Amino acid sequence: MATTKLLSDAEVENIPAVKAVFDDIRATRKSDFVNNFWRGLANDPVSLKRIWAQLKVVMVADSAIDPLTKEMIYIAVSTANGCSYCVHSHTAAARAKGMTEAQHGELVSIIGLAGQTNHLVTAMQIPVDPQFEVK
Amino acid sequence: MATTKLLSDAEVENIPAVKAVFDDIRATRKSDFVNNFWRGLANDPVSLKRIWAQLKVVMVADSAIDPLTKEMIYIAVSTANGCSYCVHSHTAAARAKGMTEAQHGELVSIIGLAGQTNHLVTAMQIPVDPQFEVK
Amino acid sequence: MATTKLLSDAEVENIPAVKAVFDDIRATRKSDFVNNFWRGLANDPVSLKRIWAQLKVVMVADSAIDPLTKEMIYIAVSTANGCSYCVHSHTAAARAKGMTEAQHGELVSIIGLAGQTNHLVTAMQIPVDPQFEVK
Amino acid sequence: MATTKLLSDAEVENIPAVKAVFDDIRATRKSDFVNNFWRGLANDPVSLKRIWAQLKVVMVADSAIDPLTKEMIYIAVSTANGCSYCVHSHTAAARAKGMTEAQHGELVSIIGLAGQTNHLVTAMQIPVDPQFEVK
Amino acid sequence: MATTKLLSDAEVENIPAVKAVFDDIRATRKSDFVNNFWRGLANDPVSLKRIWAQLKVVMVADSAIDPLTKEMIYIAVSTANGCSYCVHSHTAAARAKGMTEAQHGELVSIIGLAGQTNHLVTAMQIPVDPQFEVK
Amino acid sequence: MATTKLLSDAEVENIPAVKAVFDDIRATRKSDFVNNFWRGLANDPVSLKRIWAQLKVVMVADSAIDPLTKEMIYIAVSTANGCSYCVHSHTAAARAKGMTEAQHGELVSIIGLAGQTNHLVTAMQIPVDPQFEVK
Repeated sequence: MATTKLLSDAEVENIPAVKAVFDDIRATRKSDFVNNFWRGLANDPVSLKRIWAQLKVVMVADSAIDPLTKEMIYIAVSTANGCSYCVHSHTAAARAKGMTEAQHGELVSIIGLAGQTNHLVTAMQIPVDPQFEVK
Repeated sequence: MATTKLLSDAEVENIPAVKAVFDDIRATRKSDFVNNFWRGLANDPVSLKRIWAQLKVVMVADSAIDPLTKEMIYIAVSTANGCSYCVHSHTAAARAKGMTEAQHGELVSIIGLAGQTNHLVTAMQIPVDPQFEVK
Repeated sequence: MATTKLLSDAEVENIPAVKAVFDDIRATRKSDFVNNFWRGLANDPVSLKRIWAQLKVVMVADSAIDPLTKEMIYIAVSTANGCSYCVHSHTAAARAKGMTEAQHGELVSIIGLAGQTNHLVTAMQIPVDPQFEVK
Repeated sequence: MATTKLLSDAEVENIPAVKAVFDDIRATRKSDFVNNFWRGLANDPVSLKRIWAQLKVVMVADSAIDPLTKEMIYIAVSTANGCSYCVHSHTAAARAKGMTEAQHGELVSIIGLAGQTNHLVTAMQIPVDPQFEVK
Repeated sequence: MATTKLLSDAEVENIPAVKAVFDDIRATRKSDFVNNFWRGLANDPVSLKRIWAQLKVVMVADSAIDPLTKEMIYIAVSTANGCSYCVHSHTAAARAKGMTEAQHGELVSIIGLAGQTNHLVTAMQIPVDPQFEVK
Repeated sequence: MATTKLLSDAEVENIPAVKAVFDDIRATRKSDFVNNFWRGLANDPVSLKRIWAQLKVVMVADSAIDPLTKEMIYIAVSTANGCSYCVHSHTAAARAKGMTEAQHGELVSIIGLAGQTNHLVTAMQIPVDPQFEVK
């Protein structure tokens, strides 16, 4: 259960600012499926438009990091932040972009190892080596 | 300042179990530099050996994810966990493995965007779409 | 499912120390509803009393921050900590204290933006400007 | 020490896209001071522009939540996320917008109490009461 | 719902590397029950073996910290990280190792208090006293 | 640098409500040392008194968990929350209560392992086994 309503397609039909974003999500993704995140954000059409615009720039546009790697980075952040929905949605997105089961297994291992060494470092309060400084 | 001693090379010289790991770190990385994380862990030689063995398997061995991507995933987790030392050390490692400034800029942007949507999802408590389920 | 029992009103009836707190919760809130959080804490009557006493001091007493703002701050912390129950309960409380949908939308936006810039700052490890120091 | 360079005013002088944002930050804030966050983001002019544009919409524009409350919410998120820089910069911003020492003391108390009850709830895994559901 | 399959005993029967670990889990714990965590990890037999080997060394082997205290420390970390599954599984494990309801109540109180003072410290950005330094 | 003043003994001399708490801290701990946390909280005498009273109940009073174990649990939470000050102060407290270097090494290992399995579980979104439910 959400703390806001999740707008249905019927409800969106009457809010042109939301309808325009949903249409663009569908066109960009070449799929009729609009997931719950956008249906929650749709309560605030200005935010909806802003967040979708950012996602297109950061995640969809051509860039120096390939689309699958972007999704794996997203899963990593979402896991460390404990966002269940985000882990689910971006794992599905990564698979849709070709992530193999072997890659998923490795991704999970890297995230786990980073979780471990992050905790070890923090428990020991290790100071940053001067060699890591950016001059 | 750490909550444990950081062992110097002179101190390690007298602890064969630690010396062996430090030698392997140097041989594996083809560098004389052993960073503070290992010097803190060296207080517990059994842990030191276990953690280094894992790091070799997960981060160094040939695998389905390339070495630079692995480092970027590590940075992502470390950032979300707020581990300053880890962000520093793995950003240095990623640069050593060829991360360009353009890639770093994009990595930072993806991490930032994931941080934002993680918070939006959690604030709205969005339920997982059935489409994201693994059958 | 909880990791402790959630005490029912019938069970509480036989534990005077718990009954007294539940009575005060009902009187203070002018409502018969006692939510699950207190039913879990009731396994430890001393803690129950201590936590409720604090909540009255910090959240209910007259003060320099108005009641609705307090709830919005609580939602912000609970979201960043990923506490689903807390986000639900304090969003309901904020609405009961008059939070409009427009305010909720903005609150969600601020939380999301803070999540983003928090991650950007940590990924870049930005040092604190001397201008922010308290003299 | 940052993991990226912090661009000085002299360096920014030669990057028109960055210069334009810095000029707008100065004009909007009616202050010559541009804090380190923007100097780090300036390595990626497109991100710099995008993040500043968002901040103006969410934090500066007229809205249903007053400017001081916005800053207190920002401090709450930044504290829970453990972002030292962000706690410093937004506490300074809140004071600049009129936060009294009494309000700061209460804000700290609310954040602390939320941190406590968030942990209590998670340790006990309290299930969400149906009464908190949005219909 | 998981983001990976949870392997059943029938499926594991055909994967000797997984079967061997499951057999060892059962023998070590003197119980036929293999919980879902291992069934998810079983998708990556190498990880499964590595993680189980670590758990045996850290949690099962004789050591300077008694088994119940270890489980309480595990619950503390899992709570602060918001890992619902982990809080459930290690609370069950702690009870199986003799944790009384009084001890559980106190554990929850300590975790809650630590959550509170962690947030207070971070909100006030308290600097480390030199007295806490390890010489 | 803190976001509030840290009150010196000279300043506290003129604030009876704070002086009384500082005196009790010194008497309880049998030490003249009052660490920075209390000097920051002293800006808000009511909070100072409330937090110290709680700490005495939860951490100092006789109870079902021994004092050293309490400190180790505190370190575990503080590490997972990334509270550097808290890790430092409670590691010092644990050593003062007799924590050996072997115990500290194990504590760090348990925290690290919990960090790893917490991340593995969250990345795989493992559902809670019915066996872990409290009836």
